[in-house]
Amino acid sequence: MNTKILLNERPVGEPKLENFRTVKEDIVSPKEGEVLLKTIYMSLDPYMRGRMNDAKSYAKPVGIGEVMEAGALSQVVESKSELFKAGDFVEGRTGWQDNPTVNEKKLRLIDPKMAPLSTSIGVLGMPGTTAYVGMHNFAKPQKGETLVVSAASGAVGATVGQIGKIYGCRVVGVAGTEDKCEFTKTELGFDECVNYKDPNFKEKLKSACPDGVDIYWENVGGITFDTVMPILNDYARIPVCGLISFYNATSLKGGEKDRLPLLFRQILTKRMMIKGFIVFNHYDQREESIIALSKWINEGKMKYKEDFVEGLENAPNAFIGLLNGKNFGKLVVKVNSDPTL
Amino acid sequence: MNTKILLNERPVGEPKLENFRTVKEDIVSPKEGEVLLKTIYMSLDPYMRGRMNDAKSYAKPVGIGEVMEAGALSQVVESKSELFKAGDFVEGRTGWQDNPTVNEKKLRLIDPKMAPLSTSIGVLGMPGTTAYVGMHNFAKPQKGETLVVSAASGAVGATVGQIGKIYGCRVVGVAGTEDKCEFTKTELGFDECVNYKDPNFKEKLKSACPDGVDIYWENVGGITFDTVMPILNDYARIPVCGLISFYNATSLKGGEKDRLPLLFRQILTKRMMIKGFIVFNHYDQREESIIALSKWINEGKMKYKEDFVEGLENAPNAFIGLLNGKNFGKLVVKVNSDPTL
Repeated sequence: MNTKILLNERPVGEPKLENFRTVKEDIVSPKEGEVLLKTIYMSLDPYMRGRMNDAKSYAKPVGIGEVMEAGALSQVVESKSELFKAGDFVEGRTGWQDNPTVNEKKLRLIDPKMAPLSTSIGVLGMPGTTAYVGMHNFAKPQKGETLVVSAASGAVGATVGQIGKIYGCRVVGVAGTEDKCEFTKTELGFDECVNYKDPNFKEKLKSACPDGVDIYWENVGGITFDTVMPILNDYARIPVCGLISFYNATSLKGGEKDRLPLLFRQILTKRMMIKGFIVFNHYDQREESIIALSKWINEGKMKYKEDFVEGLENAPNAFIGLLNGKNFGKLVVKVNSDPTL
Repeated sequence: MNTKILLNERPVGEPKLENFRTVKEDIVSPKEGEVLLKTIYMSLDPYMRGRMNDAKSYAKPVGIGEVMEAGALSQVVESKSELFKAGDFVEGRTGWQDNPTVNEKKLRLIDPKMAPLSTSIGVLGMPGTTAYVGMHNFAKPQKGETLVVSAASGAVGATVGQIGKIYGCRVVGVAGTEDKCEFTKTELGFDECVNYKDPNFKEKLKSACPDGVDIYWENVGGITFDTVMPILNDYARIPVCGLISFYNATSLKGGEKDRLPLLFRQILTKRMMIKGFIVFNHYDQREESIIALSKWINEGKMKYKEDFVEGLENAPNAFIGLLNGKNFGKLVVKVNSDPTL
């Protein structure tokens, strides 16, 4: 028999047991290109909470009555695939079931001699790749920088912090129990770890980051972000790969007017980038920009409008108007006449 | 005489005339490496509002009694510099004054034949470079994408929108008068422009962007961002180079709990990057990540902790606990025994 756990109904807020339903079905014999599997390790990850909602997101929601989604490490029981033979170990997103029959394309072969099998859904699986890609592509840790990582003892957080140490960062974890904090320090080599349930969390996190924060790895959302926000350094990077604290939220508004949770949900699901910049830091490109803009002006592709204010004495008023959108085009104070006109 | 406009006192909210003070002083004869200038065009830009506050930001605030900061196009009256001679036109951040004496290092030579002089503080000056750098480095417009630009008829916005057109984008402006909107469409070639004071602004902006929004150029903050947020597409980019609507704010809280303005101020002044990502879009790097992680594990630089749950039947409970941080390490459901152990 194949035991499957289905989504029975969509949870409102925290999932409850009645949201799931277990069914047993006859095993399905594999057809050409399919394998019958025996699930060994199935992964549970926070992202699955999102799949239980009927909300537009980066992935299709699990339908009511469909098998819950999960990655798992399995052994091949019977194969009609040329890629895998009985006895092979494979990893793939095969769902919450114990004897599924799946297409070979969903699977990758795992070498059991390389590492313990369970790592293929952990540090050498999706969570490990999440940590690696986010650090490599977006966080770009530099020696001496301070990295704060939330959910620090979790699958992603633990890997992120250790990658930070490998690159020479000061690594400060945030976790929810003293045991977890201790583990990240003694076992993983984090410099500090602060318990977000500690009544002095904010003070402790700040004092754990005497040089501010260069990278904040966002796994969670909520109180840790609020605490880190004021101590972020110039050019801080915040990869956002998860928002555990929002997943059970029935409203994304923290209060009547709090738009931040809504923004972060979109940053994540839409894979957006927000980047602050100050032009004065880019004046190595000034010449290049002037050449390009001049060319476009000469080609008639670039127009400009100037809004002239006569006399230095009118500058304050003009400036006040500028902040209210009173100007129309580039506001220019004519202090003296232009001798070329 | 040199007329200087000083910061007299720091404004609270909107600047008022009494925040400025005008003084006349004798002209200062240039010393070695200095030039005496006659200011011709002085730029007024929203960023100056920030300089009037005594707040830590990316630039030092203007001190009480100090000359207000501004870029200007000037003509050299008297030169003790080998770089410039009397009659030359120069641009530099020479402040709110009409006959300043400044160091040669603050100035760049402007060729009056290249373009009208005033453009050196506009489309060929700081605002133009802002637009160019932000589009080139961060927005990266692609043909067929939709760009929404706030403050659309302003110095930066007008240039941004036209760069968008040059790259083949659908360009939708947002401005505060019908005249400004008309100008961006008829003169600058924008596809649409919506007046944010229109009572149907939200509906009109949405219908002007039938394919959603790929780039939102943030100049302003506030209502336009709120309207754009729900219609941003996957992989949307939001360069943030200004936040005009916040500059006069006495509090950065839009309401008791609105943390968004505070976040945006920091994104800008700290030049931060926020980037959402989903690991499944980066599986071209999966092999690379597994190789790197395995190497670190073998070298003893990477530890991992797994939290095993026995039995598929315990998956729902374990998952509920996961969302509350009950797990300690990578949560793994042991569905069947591991034959390699």
